[in-house]
Amino acid sequence: MSYERKNIAAMTGYTPGEQPDDGKVVKLNTNENPYPPSESVLKVLHGIGGEVLRRYPPPTAHKFRKVAAEVHKLQADNVIATNAGDELLRLAITTFVDPREPIGTAEPSYSLYPVLADVNDSPTVRVPLNDDWSVPDDFAKRMNDAGVKLTFIVNPHAPSGVLRPVAQLAKLAEQLDGVLLVDEAYVDFVDPELDHDATRLIADFDNVLILRTLSKGYSMAGLRFGYGLGHKTLIEPMLTKTKDSYNTDAIAQRLAIAALQHSNEAARTWQAVREERTRMAAALAELGLTCPPSQSNFLLATADNADELYESLKQRRIFVRYFDQDRLRDKLRITIGTPDQNNALLEALKELL
Amino acid sequence: MSYERKNIAAMTGYTPGEQPDDGKVVKLNTNENPYPPSESVLKVLHGIGGEVLRRYPPPTAHKFRKVAAEVHKLQADNVIATNAGDELLRLAITTFVDPREPIGTAEPSYSLYPVLADVNDSPTVRVPLNDDWSVPDDFAKRMNDAGVKLTFIVNPHAPSGVLRPVAQLAKLAEQLDGVLLVDEAYVDFVDPELDHDATRLIADFDNVLILRTLSKGYSMAGLRFGYGLGHKTLIEPMLTKTKDSYNTDAIAQRLAIAALQHSNEAARTWQAVREERTRMAAALAELGLTCPPSQSNFLLATADNADELYESLKQRRIFVRYFDQDRLRDKLRITIGTPDQNNALLEALKELL
Repeated sequence: MSYERKNIAAMTGYTPGEQPDDGKVVKLNTNENPYPPSESVLKVLHGIGGEVLRRYPPPTAHKFRKVAAEVHKLQADNVIATNAGDELLRLAITTFVDPREPIGTAEPSYSLYPVLADVNDSPTVRVPLNDDWSVPDDFAKRMNDAGVKLTFIVNPHAPSGVLRPVAQLAKLAEQLDGVLLVDEAYVDFVDPELDHDATRLIADFDNVLILRTLSKGYSMAGLRFGYGLGHKTLIEPMLTKTKDSYNTDAIAQRLAIAALQHSNEAARTWQAVREERTRMAAALAELGLTCPPSQSNFLLATADNADELYESLKQRRIFVRYFDQDRLRDKLRITIGTPDQNNALLEALKELL
Repeated sequence: MSYERKNIAAMTGYTPGEQPDDGKVVKLNTNENPYPPSESVLKVLHGIGGEVLRRYPPPTAHKFRKVAAEVHKLQADNVIATNAGDELLRLAITTFVDPREPIGTAEPSYSLYPVLADVNDSPTVRVPLNDDWSVPDDFAKRMNDAGVKLTFIVNPHAPSGVLRPVAQLAKLAEQLDGVLLVDEAYVDFVDPELDHDATRLIADFDNVLILRTLSKGYSMAGLRFGYGLGHKTLIEPMLTKTKDSYNTDAIAQRLAIAALQHSNEAARTWQAVREERTRMAAALAELGLTCPPSQSNFLLATADNADELYESLKQRRIFVRYFDQDRLRDKLRITIGTPDQNNALLEALKELL
């Protein structure tokens, strides 16, 4: 017999991007940083001894939280360490949204949000973005009217890469009745000249929760480490009640501390990605594939027969991402790779187009 | 204002055992294995390169699941890898228990179970164990009458260390209307002569879920790696729907594979712990502290003024565990340490008693 809850039996799980085992592919489909993690992080990894493994890890990752607080000019009680950003998304729902109460997102957006809502037996309120991927003026009103307790905004936006200014987020935070989770998975790739810093919202709004992750900017998708920043009244229940007792492991905590303390090493990769992003956007445009202005490590390229192009690239062992959903069927999401990877993609596109 | 759900605001979180930072303590309070993890595991750890960190990990840990399936003579679809055993406990509730439906446990038991139930807004049905820590005959009936969807049994039992035979578990599985989760966190320390193997229940019962962890037996509490074994209809919804997309990281998956493939190295520590367990039970009895027969890596010692004894030991930098709750107020839970640690405890007790 089946023992599943009805909503679990009825739902569909999240589909991760393809991870071909074969190393001989050009993998531009899951927004990984194309450069390796910093040497300082690897040095810490290779110095870890058995005693670190043998004992329980610090349950709240207090040393990491202190380091992150310093980096962001906050206090440790504004920080929670999580098993990658995904855990923060889940914890926010568990902590702030009763079963059957709705969560909100923009459409399109990260496809995990509605899956996590389904697990909570919550409906997802989806407000379509404007044609230029900006958030419509009545966004907050529509969330409030629907009784939404938690709204997810990914910024820079995925899959378009478009950045919303902090002032717009502040307006949203002010207008929303519930919690606003700003998913900054890709924020490290924003041009420094823009001086974008959403963490300054935390001083003014007790309903803003900011997600950060080491998966992209710090080249550690394999490590699963992220963190949340927010008012201490948002952080405290997740930290002391709803997270698993020892949610982040001892190795990850040490590597995360090293990563933040040596962020200048990772920052060199962000600059390299930005330079390639500029070059690729121009090169794709020359091929007739236009992209909105991206502040992320990917581009969303509009193309005739995008689905066929996706398949043809795949046959050439070049993986990009295709989403079979409204407004995305004529588009490919292309992760910025190394110059060699990017050139391989451009060469293939020249032949295919 | 507060954005917490009402049940979260009302609940109390789990209290982990003390983890003194000072290395100069005798730490017998959180049931860690006193011996280091195997050399084979550390060798794998130190050989991990940046590419493993840079890319997303295998989302379902398929290689680990295959290895675990071979070890337990099951199929990969009977196995889910989790972020330590705690994640499996949470996933079981999320997957099989609707909010406000009850979960069941024996009393006393692992204090995390009711906390996880609270997060789910579920009441906890607690059936007291018999005086000898065995499960009462009407246990299943009482769970069924209360509408319990998921029952947690820790075996060997914590905090007593007493083992229930597989035949008793089979009877429970047969009688229970819901899922029976057998938490085998300590099973590696069971005497091999007893030929205890609860995994054989999986062939006969589609409602049995078995929890295993590398935290204790494999000396890797710091790594947070566990797994669940059960009928594929129990495993599948957790694997494809309710777990976080990439719940176990790439390092942990590799170390877990190495640990199971070289379990003979860990098994030597289990034997050492068993020998010390026998010696300590006798030595404590000589001091007037009696313990039920333990098949775990800890002993539950009855003592006059157990709370004062706990404090006096702590002043001497010897940490054991004291639970201020019914049936445990006159007891100390003592992890089996190395011979030196155990001797330090015995010396201190001789002076204090």
